Amino acid sequence: MLDPTMTAARLVAIALAHGLAISFLAGATGAISGGHLNPAVTLAFVVAGKENLVRAGLYVGSQILGGIFGALFLKWCTPESVRGTLGSHDVNPIIFGSQAFLMELILTFVLIFVIFGVAVDRRGPGVIAPIPIGFAVVVDHLVGVPYTGASMNPARSFGPAIVSGAFGSQHLLYWAAPGFGATLASALYR
Amino acid sequence: MLDPTMTAARLVAIALAHGLAISFLAGATGAISGGHLNPAVTLAFVVAGKENLVRAGLYVGSQILGGIFGALFLKWCTPESVRGTLGSHDVNPIIFGSQAFLMELILTFVLIFVIFGVAVDRRGPGVIAPIPIGFAVVVDHLVGVPYTGASMNPARSFGPAIVSGAFGSQHLLYWAAPGFGATLASALYR
Amino acid sequence: MLDPTMTAARLVAIALAHGLAISFLAGATGAISGGHLNPAVTLAFVVAGKENLVRAGLYVGSQILGGIFGALFLKWCTPESVRGTLGSHDVNPIIFGSQAFLMELILTFVLIFVIFGVAVDRRGPGVIAPIPIGFAVVVDHLVGVPYTGASMNPARSFGPAIVSGAFGSQHLLYWAAPGFGATLASALYR
Amino acid sequence: MLDPTMTAARLVAIALAHGLAISFLAGATGAISGGHLNPAVTLAFVVAGKENLVRAGLYVGSQILGGIFGALFLKWCTPESVRGTLGSHDVNPIIFGSQAFLMELILTFVLIFVIFGVAVDRRGPGVIAPIPIGFAVVVDHLVGVPYTGASMNPARSFGPAIVSGAFGSQHLLYWAAPGFGATLASALYR
Ligand SMILES: [Ca+2]
Ligand SMILES: [Ca+2]
Ligand SMILES: [Ca+2]
Ligand SMILES: [Ca+2]
Repeated sequence: MLDPTMTAARLVAIALAHGLAISFLAGATGAISGGHLNPAVTLAFVVAGKENLVRAGLYVGSQILGGIFGALFLKWCTPESVRGTLGSHDVNPIIFGSQAFLMELILTFVLIFVIFGVAVDRRGPGVIAPIPIGFAVVVDHLVGVPYTGASMNPARSFGPAIVSGAFGSQHLLYWAAPGFGATLASALYR
Repeated sequence: MLDPTMTAARLVAIALAHGLAISFLAGATGAISGGHLNPAVTLAFVVAGKENLVRAGLYVGSQILGGIFGALFLKWCTPESVRGTLGSHDVNPIIFGSQAFLMELILTFVLIFVIFGVAVDRRGPGVIAPIPIGFAVVVDHLVGVPYTGASMNPARSFGPAIVSGAFGSQHLLYWAAPGFGATLASALYR
Repeated sequence: MLDPTMTAARLVAIALAHGLAISFLAGATGAISGGHLNPAVTLAFVVAGKENLVRAGLYVGSQILGGIFGALFLKWCTPESVRGTLGSHDVNPIIFGSQAFLMELILTFVLIFVIFGVAVDRRGPGVIAPIPIGFAVVVDHLVGVPYTGASMNPARSFGPAIVSGAFGSQHLLYWAAPGFGATLASALYR
Repeated sequence: MLDPTMTAARLVAIALAHGLAISFLAGATGAISGGHLNPAVTLAFVVAGKENLVRAGLYVGSQILGGIFGALFLKWCTPESVRGTLGSHDVNPIIFGSQAFLMELILTFVLIFVIFGVAVDRRGPGVIAPIPIGFAVVVDHLVGVPYTGASMNPARSFGPAIVSGAFGSQHLLYWAAPGFGATLASALYR
């Protein structure tokens, strides 16, 4: 493993928490709002011509607000002594920025490719779609957490960073790399 | 992690046990009795006008009895030396009561929101509903166990407490916070 | 945990291995042979009047042979120095035989109850049935491994015991307790 | 466990990563290309008379290329100091080659048997097929990683080996044993 302070058991806990959360939230909201939950996903739908810009803007605004409120609630529930940076992402210091960028790009590419394959493509296994989508997020975390925290989601990165004040110089990476990966996957699928 | 005696591996074991149990029990009993398994869930259905008070009372009574019998069977199977408090919930001493209350409220809110989104809402992914519901319980435990034990279910808290005698002064919290969270989620969904 | 040599991570690995195996094997064989895979399950179907004795005998014979061949293949693949008892079950020495019996009975009761609720009951979630059944086996293992190894299945107990020679005086328990639990659950469901 | 440097937590992380990846990738590509992802799977379809040789050749070529590109991307993202052999498979030195061969053969046999039972057999649970297939890969890894790394897939073994230069004398085993296991399972199912 890249990071000696990250044990395999913690990696499994983090991966299951993020992946199963995306799975049940996509299942619970997919029929209401599309269940994007992630600006990179909304961008992919715009690039694919499957979402108009007005609704996309509303979705992204809501996603950012959701990330901020999630981080605020976590802050209110957690004593300062163990609060850390509220799960903010940062890049493992032993890797280059270009490696971090490529990792986040690939992780997001995989996620968007799966979303299009199981939930958009009419030949896909529609009714169970939230399960493979959740599994993709689990696996992306098992691979990427030791590198970058495996964000794939700018709103997930932004909320904890702004609430905890842990904005690193690398924050932009968590917007640009998922954006690129989502655009590539969407263009490929088209 | 909040509690230094709680390892990540134990957290995963606890979360999978509770979450997958809710998943298969809801799957096995959903068509017979609704598969509430939890007074907070029954309350949410009453608030939503989807369950009458008589049947709700019978459900809650059965849920409390189930929690007591579960704890009794566990006591009978387990030697006294390792019996502890039979999995009774308590609040991590480093957090305030208000933080515990907010945590249980949010965890239960999320659970009820998912139940309504996947199993009540007719636009939801009906046939697979027990899976996202179970995933929500897994994730709620991964988040909340270090704070409050992640009850979300007064009957789950009551049984072990009464059988082991481990009633803390905080026991009421495990009724009030899930009740509030369930009411909020149900009202929102309405 | 009951057994200090059993870590939480090993418990998760064991539980996932047994539970997900039952899930995919039931999914792959359910339509061909019913996918019982376990003499206790076949007994439950006989008690419920849903399987005739001739076919039940053939199933149980095949299940026992399967358990023996599985243990033989494992023996052939594994060097003697680390072979142990090939995963034979035994009862934790700190619990009484009666506690072990009650634990195996309850674990099997839960498993059969779930099988009837999701795969036999026509109101159940038929198409996804292998998933809640697998989840029940995962959870039964998370609960019961530290007590008895969580057999619930005489053929699973018999194969490794006969191939490794690790027949304890308690072996009969792994036939009687699952048999009782299965009969109870089947009678209740009827 | 066979290998003292392999902890149970790492085993769970590895098994979930490989198994859930196969699950979501088969779900996302099954309707487009069959979702074989593995030369042993393609061979099984050829043996069963369900795939013609031209398309099978294209699939296997793509699978090998995919394995090479996956390893290359991993290499580019990972600093040399922790790069190791990029997840190349090798046989545990405490087991014989014949034991490794038998293990890979059985693991692949189980995988192909499940694929045919849930995704090819029309009596199987078609719509959820990617889930039991993924579970089979999880369980195969929980069993086989300490013996051989649990390849079951020559393209998965080939890519990291050629990119990292970690070709052992045993590399042929990772082609022959899965090939045998797949042929056996396919012939049996026919
Ligand atoms: Ca993340
Ligand atoms: Ca709990
Ligand atoms: Ca067992
Ligand atoms: Ca592998």
